[in-house]
Amino acid sequence: MIIDWKTIALNIYDQIKAKVSLLKKKPTLWAILVWSNSASLRYIKQKQKWADYTWIWFNLIQLDENIKEDELLKIVEQFNKDSNISWYIVQLPLPKHINEDLIINTILPEKDVDWFHPINQWKILIWDNSWLVPCTPAWIMEIFKSQYVDLIWKIVCIIGRSNIVWKPITALLINAWSTVISCNSKTIDLTSFTKIADIVIVATWQPGLLKENMLKKWSLIIDVWFTVIDNKIYWDAETKEIDNAWHKITPVPGWVWTLTVALLMKNTLKSYEIQENK
Amino acid sequence: MIIDWKTIALNIYDQIKAKVSLLKKKPTLWAILVWSNSASLRYIKQKQKWADYTWIWFNLIQLDENIKEDELLKIVEQFNKDSNISWYIVQLPLPKHINEDLIINTILPEKDVDWFHPINQWKILIWDNSWLVPCTPAWIMEIFKSQYVDLIWKIVCIIGRSNIVWKPITALLINAWSTVISCNSKTIDLTSFTKIADIVIVATWQPGLLKENMLKKWSLIIDVWFTVIDNKIYWDAETKEIDNAWHKITPVPGWVWTLTVALLMKNTLKSYEIQENK
Repeated sequence: MIIDWKTIALNIYDQIKAKVSLLKKKPTLWAILVWSNSASLRYIKQKQKWADYTWIWFNLIQLDENIKEDELLKIVEQFNKDSNISWYIVQLPLPKHINEDLIINTILPEKDVDWFHPINQWKILIWDNSWLVPCTPAWIMEIFKSQYVDLIWKIVCIIGRSNIVWKPITALLINAWSTVISCNSKTIDLTSFTKIADIVIVATWQPGLLKENMLKKWSLIIDVWFTVIDNKIYWDAETKEIDNAWHKITPVPGWVWTLTVALLMKNTLKSYEIQENK
Repeated sequence: MIIDWKTIALNIYDQIKAKVSLLKKKPTLWAILVWSNSASLRYIKQKQKWADYTWIWFNLIQLDENIKEDELLKIVEQFNKDSNISWYIVQLPLPKHINEDLIINTILPEKDVDWFHPINQWKILIWDNSWLVPCTPAWIMEIFKSQYVDLIWKIVCIIGRSNIVWKPITALLINAWSTVISCNSKTIDLTSFTKIADIVIVATWQPGLLKENMLKKWSLIIDVWFTVIDNKIYWDAETKEIDNAWHKITPVPGWVWTLTVALLMKNTLKSYEIQENK
């Protein structure tokens, strides 16, 4: 069975909209777009669209892609100082002549609604519910919630050791009392681990790595990324094989972005609520 | 077989001493001691002793234990500004009326030789060799090195989900391409995981949790902490059972501190080298 992401995402948007509609002053999300290559432009347009849908103001600042690193740094510092700007994002990736880490680390942690700053990432590791969660691990947690998965006592196998997925999701799962097995491309007998897992999270960019005969019955598969070869989409899991009565699996191309953006809007609203409650 | 920590620690001290003896200007380690309860005093004395041994200057600032939080904060900020102080530590634990996290987070990351600051902890997660490692995970890595353990392809089972051990050591192992199984007190069948592990790291403060019949032959056991009940030391692993021809195990009371301090001196020397190479 393929999990219906679309409904999950739309539910989140509608919940946010309902909450925002009751606010006297609407939250504003600022965004800095430097590089307007087609992917980041498409992504920022999604953000604009869903901000509009949820009644969150969206202020986009578009900068010339030849901007120098120190000029961008200055703008980020101005954003930090400006008390009218409560939260903002810098759309990634940045052009190659700009040090992405340097920019991310300059954003004031309390204005970093993407939750990418090291201080914020570290807070995930010592997690409590009062903080935000970056959008990718957050949507994975939303999937668990939507499927009524009780993470305690569960065995979760994570394949891939990326910064964006492995670290935060492992921390979130450990904090939720799951037993977590972290595998990578050097793991000798991958099947011995996937076969005992209640949940398998795969984020490797290796098309078709995970097959049906590697899974235990009734397990839930989270396939985080896909690879595009010759305009065809390949998932890390063999979706067609696994899409049967015994498994739940996530891949629905396109909607992953919609879900990620939903969590960005949720972070914006949560930041607003944290600020109001101060 | 019990691993000979003492020799490992002494080797590290001698290596540091040999390197420091060649330096024209000796590195200086500053330390702030607020609470002089017997444990922290004993610990700081160990640091003094081994700094002397390795020819590292050790400057201890002792403060009244009734010092207010904001007064301590001011001293930390002075230490940050003072260009004569390249690195320093604040001895933990602090008295209960002081917010430990606040103090740690105020130490300038590049002066934080304990490597406790969130920014530094985060750097472990995106690890490369140019950075330091906090002393506890660092000594565990030293044990692997001393036993010629090649971490790639190894299955490592970690029991316990503490901030000090679980997080950094998991990151270091994943970065070294191990397959890591993170268990906790809610893990249903612990033995099924310890039984397949080449290395078991136990850090739970549960006396005698790990028994010989839960292990696979030839596995290496790292027992991080012990509990003291009625002046008797209890390890998380049943050392007597496991101390046989098929296993290597770490417990040697007392020497764990010596090894931890050895890694602090190593961090001090490394900070010095990083500064000199700038």
